[in-house]
Amino acid sequence: MKITLIGTGNVAYHLGLRFREQDIILNQFIGKNADKTRAFSMIFQTDATTDFSKIKTDSDIYIIAVNDSAIETVAQKLSQVLDNQLVTHTSGSVPSTVLAPFFKNYGSLYPLQTFSVSSPVDFERVPIFINASSNAVSLPPQYFLDFLEQIALTLSPIVHFLPDEKRIALHVAAVFVNNFTNHLFQIGKDITDKNNLPFDVLKPLIEQTVLKIQNQEPKAVQTGPAKRGDHNTMEKHLDFLKDYPPQYLGLYKLFSESIRTIQQLKP
Amino acid sequence: MKITLIGTGNVAYHLGLRFREQDIILNQFIGKNADKTRAFSMIFQTDATTDFSKIKTDSDIYIIAVNDSAIETVAQKLSQVLDNQLVTHTSGSVPSTVLAPFFKNYGSLYPLQTFSVSSPVDFERVPIFINASSNAVSLPPQYFLDFLEQIALTLSPIVHFLPDEKRIALHVAAVFVNNFTNHLFQIGKDITDKNNLPFDVLKPLIEQTVLKIQNQEPKAVQTGPAKRGDHNTMEKHLDFLKDYPPQYLGLYKLFSESIRTIQQLKP
Repeated sequence: MKITLIGTGNVAYHLGLRFREQDIILNQFIGKNADKTRAFSMIFQTDATTDFSKIKTDSDIYIIAVNDSAIETVAQKLSQVLDNQLVTHTSGSVPSTVLAPFFKNYGSLYPLQTFSVSSPVDFERVPIFINASSNAVSLPPQYFLDFLEQIALTLSPIVHFLPDEKRIALHVAAVFVNNFTNHLFQIGKDITDKNNLPFDVLKPLIEQTVLKIQNQEPKAVQTGPAKRGDHNTMEKHLDFLKDYPPQYLGLYKLFSESIRTIQQLKP
Repeated sequence: MKITLIGTGNVAYHLGLRFREQDIILNQFIGKNADKTRAFSMIFQTDATTDFSKIKTDSDIYIIAVNDSAIETVAQKLSQVLDNQLVTHTSGSVPSTVLAPFFKNYGSLYPLQTFSVSSPVDFERVPIFINASSNAVSLPPQYFLDFLEQIALTLSPIVHFLPDEKRIALHVAAVFVNNFTNHLFQIGKDITDKNNLPFDVLKPLIEQTVLKIQNQEPKAVQTGPAKRGDHNTMEKHLDFLKDYPPQYLGLYKLFSESIRTIQQLKP
């Protein structure tokens, strides 16, 4: 199995590391930035180019791991040199059909995880979401999906089929539980910092918050002043937040309202 | 060391378990609900009463672990029978000074953790926040604080002094990182449920979100469309959220705005 990865960002980097670990041949990297592309060539000890005319056409799959906004541009350039090869992107928010005008066989392979260069990724626990379509008449429609599933299974044992129409739901859910949760941690740090309290004291509480939902529904383990309808405490908190960015106050109010609504309690 | 615990809720329950583990004498429980009080008597194999006239006065400390709104009522009743004993509450949002009109020696012992009867608590990792004051003229002011520290150290190795004026800051920070984070998980579950996606696929992402802040600042590891200023994706997400409770849309907008502001990028 030979793979070409397009991109030199966090996703291409971690996918590359994982494929190499699984003895998949990293046939070539294609990058935009010359320095990064050279670095990838050294790190992965393989061919890497910024020149689309030097693209190797003998890979089994081409995985576009670039910013959402660059996917179509890259696809257009790739389509000049490729023909029947399977081409996928890795985006959580772009439908796989953006590749349809350019390739006969296309799909997506979306690893649901937050990637930073500095943080190792435990791929055994990263769900991979795939879909694939084909205009090829000589092959059964399932062929490329089965093929993509084989590739996804080399990355992780958790592979799900994700049709394009559900992609956005998954991505929005991920934004809430990952990006927004991290921002709540940032707010917690800001408040403790400003009051000379160590942020570290909040970490066991954060861990317990996550542990609780391992076996119980978030709704069932909701606690706090809003859940209890403790207006006295909420008023004090809103008053306290007046010295902070106005968004904190807005978030406090909206969360309290949302918690009351979801728990189907009186506001 | 003899302790009296007032309350039969989650906090009294877990404090009781932990004190017993540490071979502290649970002298008596005082409850309001007769059934729960009887249950506590059986569970902890100790005296338990709902009758304030039967309160044992020979405990070294009385810990009021009841709802915030009931603290003063309980304190008033206790003050009829107690005199020089140290009395503390366990609240994160009520200043210890609410006890000042009732007792010579008072304070607070606030375990920063979310307690549910069904979830075991690892006290080794629960920070305990204490403060204590005394009107006693015969003892140095530090006496009761030192004494309370000894008691707190039997619960957890992590003990901090928390003056009343910082209590609210800590509690607000805890509401953000615990209560509101849990609500974000609830929203994630709601979105995945409605789209027939398993909520479990989000759990590795949630764990990674928490792992990332162990050694790095939340601000440094913020990712997502708002951080990137990816307005195209944000517009699609806002459109998607129109079919959900209006608070979700409001939260999405406010978080995105807050992330942009905190990251000191252009809105």
